Amino acid sequence: MVMQVRAARTRQALIVAAAEVFADEGYVRASLPLICKRAGVSSGALHFHFASKDALARQVESAAVDAAEKLAERYRAAAGTALQSMVDVTSGLMLAMVSDPVVRAGFRLSGDPSRKGGAELFQWWHASVRELVLRARDAGELAQDVSPEDAVAAIVAATVGFEALAGWDKDWLSTERAARFWEFVLPRMAVSPELIPDGTSLGVKEGLP
Amino acid sequence: MVMQVRAARTRQALIVAAAEVFADEGYVRASLPLICKRAGVSSGALHFHFASKDALARQVESAAVDAAEKLAERYRAAAGTALQSMVDVTSGLMLAMVSDPVVRAGFRLSGDPSRKGGAELFQWWHASVRELVLRARDAGELAQDVSPEDAVAAIVAATVGFEALAGWDKDWLSTERAARFWEFVLPRMAVSPELIPDGTSLGVKEGLP
Repeated sequence: MVMQVRAARTRQALIVAAAEVFADEGYVRASLPLICKRAGVSSGALHFHFASKDALARQVESAAVDAAEKLAERYRAAAGTALQSMVDVTSGLMLAMVSDPVVRAGFRLSGDPSRKGGAELFQWWHASVRELVLRARDAGELAQDVSPEDAVAAIVAATVGFEALAGWDKDWLSTERAARFWEFVLPRMAVSPELIPDGTSLGVKEGLP
Repeated sequence: MVMQVRAARTRQALIVAAAEVFADEGYVRASLPLICKRAGVSSGALHFHFASKDALARQVESAAVDAAEKLAERYRAAAGTALQSMVDVTSGLMLAMVSDPVVRAGFRLSGDPSRKGGAELFQWWHASVRELVLRARDAGELAQDVSPEDAVAAIVAATVGFEALAGWDKDWLSTERAARFWEFVLPRMAVSPELIPDGTSLGVKEGLP
């Protein structure tokens, strides 16, 4: 039992260390020795848990989707309307892109041309935004002259872009950026103007970078 | 003189080949032998023109900024209003991201975490969008309740995001996407509704992918 707990801890440490190295260095430059060193784990232990760098990257992507889904689930359950959920999930995710190396690495791996992976987090985010926008439309929250698919594309592209731009200048990624994005976009999308662009309804601003 | 023409051609062929390889493989995986092969040029010729892969990448970035600036200049000169210029430049740039390997590589290198470059094309694009949005505000074309900086951030992030998402699925990048983005965004930004979201005023749809 103690052995199992220790193995699970080692595995988790390797996923977090790999996420940090993938996010900082990109997939190709990330080396297994560097990941072992960052995790404080031997090369033998790494190979016990993961057959290859590709296997490790797939686990990081999968862990990123799990973390993002858990976060989204929390906001979806709490907010009053579909559009408020949309706002809150976006703020929460943009905060997680800064504070959670696994989520950040998930986006970086999705967009890394050298990886040729399945872009799992991009797929998850697109499906999540689409579901919330369609729910908003069905609930009559969406302005009549807005195409849901156009709104989905703009929201997904902007959030992915904020993450990519943060590699150049980290100011592009914060919950304040998310709030200002929604201040720009919500008056176009929403029938009701009573939404809270900065997601304060849920205290997502706590820990604002 | 013949020698100079040939040298200039070789240099140009190397820049285009390098752009293609950087865009497809990412900076780290791009190898000089592969770039030589793609350009049909010897390794000696490559080293005559470029001291290192980094020097080549900087030349690709610089060529990308030149190409994008030339394109933007054409649309800025032709369009009637600042906002119409904004729409037309975005459509033209998104088309160039597909059709011009140098422009595509410029964006890819700007967003590549393994490159640690100066993100030249991101900087250029941010400055260009900002200039057009501020010009629109000064000309009274911008809706009163829109913060110019928020609009700039949303437009830059969305366009960078479309390019990043196209690495996952190339449908994210087309002039039709650009048109649909502007159909979503323009009613929020513009005082006048008479703008043309698909940039047809300038024939940018020619060669639509």
